[in-house]
Formats: sequence, structure tokens, C-alpha cells
Amino acid sequence: MRLYVTPASPWVRRVVVSILELGIRDRFQFVQTKWPHAWATQTVAPNPEFWGATPVVRIPALATVDFTLTDSHSICDYLNGEFGNFRLLPRDGVARWRALANISVANGIIEAQISRRAELLRSEHERSNDFIGKMQDRQLRCFEALEKQVPAFGAIFDLAQITTAVACGYEDWRYGTDWRAAAPKLAAWFDAVSKRPAMQATRPAETPQA
Amino acid sequence: MRLYVTPASPWVRRVVVSILELGIRDRFQFVQTKWPHAWATQTVAPNPEFWGATPVVRIPALATVDFTLTDSHSICDYLNGEFGNFRLLPRDGVARWRALANISVANGIIEAQISRRAELLRSEHERSNDFIGKMQDRQLRCFEALEKQVPAFGAIFDLAQITTAVACGYEDWRYGTDWRAAAPKLAAWFDAVSKRPAMQATRPAETPQA
Repeated sequence: MRLYVTPASPWVRRVVVSILELGIRDRFQFVQTKWPHAWATQTVAPNPEFWGATPVVRIPALATVDFTLTDSHSICDYLNGEFGNFRLLPRDGVARWRALANISVANGIIEAQISRRAELLRSEHERSNDFIGKMQDRQLRCFEALEKQVPAFGAIFDLAQITTAVACGYEDWRYGTDWRAAAPKLAAWFDAVSKRPAMQATRPAETPQA
Repeated sequence: MRLYVTPASPWVRRVVVSILELGIRDRFQFVQTKWPHAWATQTVAPNPEFWGATPVVRIPALATVDFTLTDSHSICDYLNGEFGNFRLLPRDGVARWRALANISVANGIIEAQISRRAELLRSEHERSNDFIGKMQDRQLRCFEALEKQVPAFGAIFDLAQITTAVACGYEDWRYGTDWRAAAPKLAAWFDAVSKRPAMQATRPAETPQA
């Protein structure tokens, strides 16, 4: 299977951390993609093979012999069910729904982070500072909401925890925002899980320019 | 359970169609939300109770006694597993992954549609015509990709078909684009499924302004 990646993407990171945590790295060929900063507003197709693999032209994308999954939600669901014996996310029942509740909030942070990044890459006359503020407001509300969930985090570094950790890590790397003051328990938890080999091996880095 | 809705949102529509197709409408209280057009770039909180229910402050959101699910992916997963006996999406195995592959492409259309809508609601000096073009390109590629999947669509109006139909319906309603020329089989299929009571009962309409 070919997984299209870049080290700057938090959506890619949650997939790669899931793969490393499940110990199935050898099943995947990672294909590094290149993205000029123009991706924020323009169609860029850095790799013809990648363009052929996914009509969404976005990463992560996982191309198997049978099908292509073109977002991290479906890829993580596949990893969990096909290779993970439902260790990352319970198969069903209230434990799954509670995990999805946290995942949907952590995803809300990541969406806001990426939307904010795309906005900052726009030329000044197409940029909305209001929009950047809206994304910052959303992120802060979501960090505060996850702060309340930390005492209930279980022993398994599951998809809810992975997604939350990736959101924290991207915020530190890309923006250096002081989210820790609003979420001290989350910060302490994040510092601890950051030491895991899967987190260390996936530290964010800039995407190669096309 | 309280489901926060508006008839203009395709993300809401895929949830509501799922509920109607499963015949479980009586389990939900639908709460209409109001959104001024400023939502495109500003934090708007039309309803204090809604704001309290979800830190993402976005619809759809489903608030149960135990937890809140704040995106359509997690809500549909919950409906399917808790009330649908996995009729909308197989529980696991290759049938689930193939359905998720189509869902991820249809979701790519809906994301592009909503991003394009938000862009059009911006003031002119903050608007990027390049970005609108990028979204149109993505939608067209995804419609063409789904066109190839139509012959393999099964007899059940499942989540992949629901999401695809909602994407087609939003395009007709909001933009009136001629996607049908590029996807004639998809258009014929859409015209047929549009007659279903669940689709008729959820035809798009403008959101009430705050």
C-alpha cells in the first residue's frame, strides 16, 4: 500500500502515529509529496501518480490494490479494523461514541489549524484577519474542552489521544501559542505522551517545496 | 437527543437523511440554528445553549445525555452502530473500506462546496478567485470519480450513496453547475434517488439569518 505523506501535516501525522503504534510500518510504502505554498489557494499537482490516486488531491491518501481512502478519518478507521483489532477505537458501543466525541473536538482543532495556515499563506489582499481570529477562538475553546476530558483518558494511547496529541504538537510547532495556560492538565499529559517513540519519530517538519 | 440543524447545510442533510432512512426520527429533537452570513469569517454564536453544547460551534452537532458528537462523520457512525444495525455502513471488512473510499470522495465535494460558499460570502477585498477555482476543480474531479463508481452502487441507499446524493443536491441548489455533463450516469442515479421520501423531506433551503 502507498501512503502519501508530508511531515508538516497533522492529518498525516495522526495516520502515521496510528501505524507506528500498531507496529505495522512494514506494510506501507510512504510516498513523500511536495507542495508549493500556492496550495493554499491554487490547484497544485506535484506528482502525476498522486493526482491519479486521489481525485481530492489532498494528503493523507492511502492507495491499496482495491481502493483509495482519501482522508485521515477513513484511513484510521481502516487501520483500526483491518490491522488493529479495534485497539485504536472500540468496535461499537458507548466506548466508541465517547471516543468519537473527543476525536471530533480534536479534529476541530486540526481543521482550524490548517485553515489558519492556509489563510496565512494567502497574499495580503486576499487575507481575512477576522477568519484567523475565528480559527484561534475555535482552537482555544476546543483545547479547553479537551482539558476537561484529560482525567478520563484511559491507559491506551488510542485514536482520541493520538488526535489530541497531534493537535497539541502542531500548535507548538507551527504557532507557538500559549494554549498550555488554558489547559494545564492537557499540557502535562502531552509532555508525557510526546516521549513515545511514535510521537518522536513523527515530529513535524516543513514540507519540501515543489 | 438534541440535533442542531439547518436546511442549508449538506453536512446536516446527510445526518438527517440517515435518520429518516433508519426510521428513527422520533428519537431526536431537531433544534434549528440561525447563522448570519458573517459566519464565513467571524465567530458567531446564534444560540447560547448551542455554544454550550459544542466547543467547535458548528453544525451538525448531536448532544446526548452522555456526550456530544460535533461532526457528521461521528454522528453517522453513531447512528449506524447504535440504531442502524450497520445498514448504512458495514461493520468492518472490505465492504466497509470500499464504502469509506466513496464516502471520502463525496465528502471531498461537500468540503469544497462549503469552502467555496464561505469564500463567496467574504467581502470582495478578502476574496480569492483562485481559491474558488481550486474548489471547483476539486469538485469536478470528484464528480468524475464517483461517475465511475455508479455501476457498482448496491441496492441499499447506504451512507456512501446518501453522501453522494447530498453532494449532488447541494450543487444543484446552491450553484446550478452543470456537473451532469461530466457525470451522466451519476445524474440519472441522482434523479432516481431524489424521489425517496428522505430526500424529498430534506430539500435544501436558506438558513434563517440571526
